Amino acid sequence: MEEKNRKKIILMAKKAKEAFLKVANISSNNRNKILFYFAKALKKNRDFILQENQKDINLAKRLNFSSALIDRLTLSPARLEAMCNSFLKLRELPDPVGRILKDWTTPAGLKIFKVSVPIGVILIIYESRPDVTADCLGLCIKSGNVVILRGGSEAFYSNQAIFKVCHQVLKDFSYPSYGANFVFVREKWAVDLLLKLNDDIDLVIPRGGEGLIRKITRISRIPVIKHYKGICHIYVDKDADLEMAKKVCFNAKVQRPATCNAMESMLVHRDIALKFLPLMLREFLSAKVKIRGCPLTLKIARETGIFSKEMFKEATDKDYSTEYLDLILAVKVVKDLEEAVAHINKYGSHHSDAIITKNKESAQEFLKKVDSACVYHNASTRLTDGYQFGMGAEMGISTDRLHARGPMALEELTTYKYTVYGNGQIRI
Amino acid sequence: MEEKNRKKIILMAKKAKEAFLKVANISSNNRNKILFYFAKALKKNRDFILQENQKDINLAKRLNFSSALIDRLTLSPARLEAMCNSFLKLRELPDPVGRILKDWTTPAGLKIFKVSVPIGVILIIYESRPDVTADCLGLCIKSGNVVILRGGSEAFYSNQAIFKVCHQVLKDFSYPSYGANFVFVREKWAVDLLLKLNDDIDLVIPRGGEGLIRKITRISRIPVIKHYKGICHIYVDKDADLEMAKKVCFNAKVQRPATCNAMESMLVHRDIALKFLPLMLREFLSAKVKIRGCPLTLKIARETGIFSKEMFKEATDKDYSTEYLDLILAVKVVKDLEEAVAHINKYGSHHSDAIITKNKESAQEFLKKVDSACVYHNASTRLTDGYQFGMGAEMGISTDRLHARGPMALEELTTYKYTVYGNGQIRI
Repeated sequence: MEEKNRKKIILMAKKAKEAFLKVANISSNNRNKILFYFAKALKKNRDFILQENQKDINLAKRLNFSSALIDRLTLSPARLEAMCNSFLKLRELPDPVGRILKDWTTPAGLKIFKVSVPIGVILIIYESRPDVTADCLGLCIKSGNVVILRGGSEAFYSNQAIFKVCHQVLKDFSYPSYGANFVFVREKWAVDLLLKLNDDIDLVIPRGGEGLIRKITRISRIPVIKHYKGICHIYVDKDADLEMAKKVCFNAKVQRPATCNAMESMLVHRDIALKFLPLMLREFLSAKVKIRGCPLTLKIARETGIFSKEMFKEATDKDYSTEYLDLILAVKVVKDLEEAVAHINKYGSHHSDAIITKNKESAQEFLKKVDSACVYHNASTRLTDGYQFGMGAEMGISTDRLHARGPMALEELTTYKYTVYGNGQIRI
Repeated sequence: MEEKNRKKIILMAKKAKEAFLKVANISSNNRNKILFYFAKALKKNRDFILQENQKDINLAKRLNFSSALIDRLTLSPARLEAMCNSFLKLRELPDPVGRILKDWTTPAGLKIFKVSVPIGVILIIYESRPDVTADCLGLCIKSGNVVILRGGSEAFYSNQAIFKVCHQVLKDFSYPSYGANFVFVREKWAVDLLLKLNDDIDLVIPRGGEGLIRKITRISRIPVIKHYKGICHIYVDKDADLEMAKKVCFNAKVQRPATCNAMESMLVHRDIALKFLPLMLREFLSAKVKIRGCPLTLKIARETGIFSKEMFKEATDKDYSTEYLDLILAVKVVKDLEEAVAHINKYGSHHSDAIITKNKESAQEFLKKVDSACVYHNASTRLTDGYQFGMGAEMGISTDRLHARGPMALEELTTYKYTVYGNGQIRI
């Protein structure tokens, strides 16, 4: 049985690669029509999808999965509605394929156009949220890529149902078979096998925790765009507008602490620490944020009477490199901008970091020296997001340096080719 | 000893990563000065370098290496001169770092700049040509990257000498230590070890044969930009200017057959085969090009009296997927453009392919449907080259789809970051 399924998966990847050549030539107009009918089909098959989703939920409950996981797993009519809307929104976005990225004429008279084209076959490995199925399918259809979807086994029935409904639409449009694929094998060996098929699969995008991504990177022969953790910082400079700093830091920590772009460490210039920290910490305490502070932070907390044993702890080195994804914040007083930059480059995850200051020179230095995908002057790290950036979609936030960095949307799902026009030029 | 060297290599990679933050902030002006002094130092130390080179040559002779390899290994005063010149040329090129790739303002008033920055630590693995040492060092200094150089063991003394001379210049400039590195261990395990250091090395670029690249891809945990083989095609359409076709095809095969952008297969539309092939084949025969022809090609050769047993063979499937790098050419008559495109996408290596035609529609279809890094209308595939494209330099020709495709030069050695200016924006 396993042997047979192995062969089937290998065949699927090969056929996916073949299908890519056809998929890449489907018109933008037809792709957008498909997205429209995806939304329609999801609406029509709502009951079927919710029913299949219930199977996953029942199984998860029997296996005593955490309520957080069951929540991520659960599809409600509202979540289905959101899935439909994101198909419709994708439809409205400009075609990422066929953009002229650059064009020039060489001294020999060659006219060169650098044109965006789809990447090829993309394997997406994700965890328990079934709406990712629809999301990734839509992004790949829109960008002319062939997708191979591999969702978490705990959402198998839900993912399969969503895929089935959309796949029927593709059939109705005579979309190339294997132009969009779902890994029908639940067992873990399927992933290991897929990650070795580097002749047929061009890119792997894992969407999940750091452990999953590290494991994939270790065994994959296919390029992986990694979305590691976000240990984001805000540095409140001595020249900061303290009201703005308070508002932005509060937002970055509290608005949605479980996201990768939430602030995990706040750095404060020592010249303003005595003035700023009591105000800021009081605000955090009112939102039940626990503080892991440096000695000076704790001292200030004690002296201003806001210290308590349950809310304050001394920060360790490990605290500075931890992604809490929770209402916990590391706080450190630094002696200057240089120390702030060095701390961020050492402990951060090169995701998103901000400086709050009225001093433009300090801002420039921070933005230049902090080696992160997104660096902010006077704004919240929570803004690192495909939608907030105006990309209209989001595949994830890359913490990688190659191909795509920061928010990934449609353009990042393309590569390019050089189209060259001559009149008989040869190499001399 | 090995254990000690392993630790040294691991330390080198870690220090290289740390050095990157300093290297990335060196001014363009200083980088260009360094390139100038590299050229000066090579000239001054010519005798030392040639002397060290002689050690490699002697060893290679004792080990009975092929004369082709010894030729690649040998540095002459002229080759040293060329190395100096390429440093000086690099100096004149615009800074690839700090380019604003895109900028826009979001509805919330965030000003976003997408700015090019260096990639980080780049490991370059190459084979026997010692001039690659200077080449890659220059490209990485210019683009603000930290390089780790690992040349072929047969050129160890030459590479070390070139590196030593340049490294002294870096010291004179107080360049960060570990800002440019040379792997001092000759043994093969050093590469295997380096390829696992994905926390400290950001990118691997192998420059060598397909075997080397496949091996690296198999074991590397670091992203690899692959420069696989070039199985390049020219399709002579029924509407081709036959004089132009003859000139371009001859150039693509004969001018320098050992390069990856030389033509390996020529496809000819059947409507013009009878007219074109005898002329073209005669020309190839005069340049001693051996033909692997499809049955119809052989038939035409026989009927026009140019057939001979030593110059003609029937083409097999394997011929169509072989990179000869030699005066051998596969020739196939096809029934139409569609067959030509399908053949190229099936047997080619997605490197460079051309159509010769006066018909603009056919050209457009070919350029769109052939899935290669560079697609040409009425020009030779030999033009796929960083210098011919006007990039002023070349790291190689990527047959990869991610990050860089086709000729790779300075811009392809950069990534980007988003620099975002706000006035207190938060996530709502």
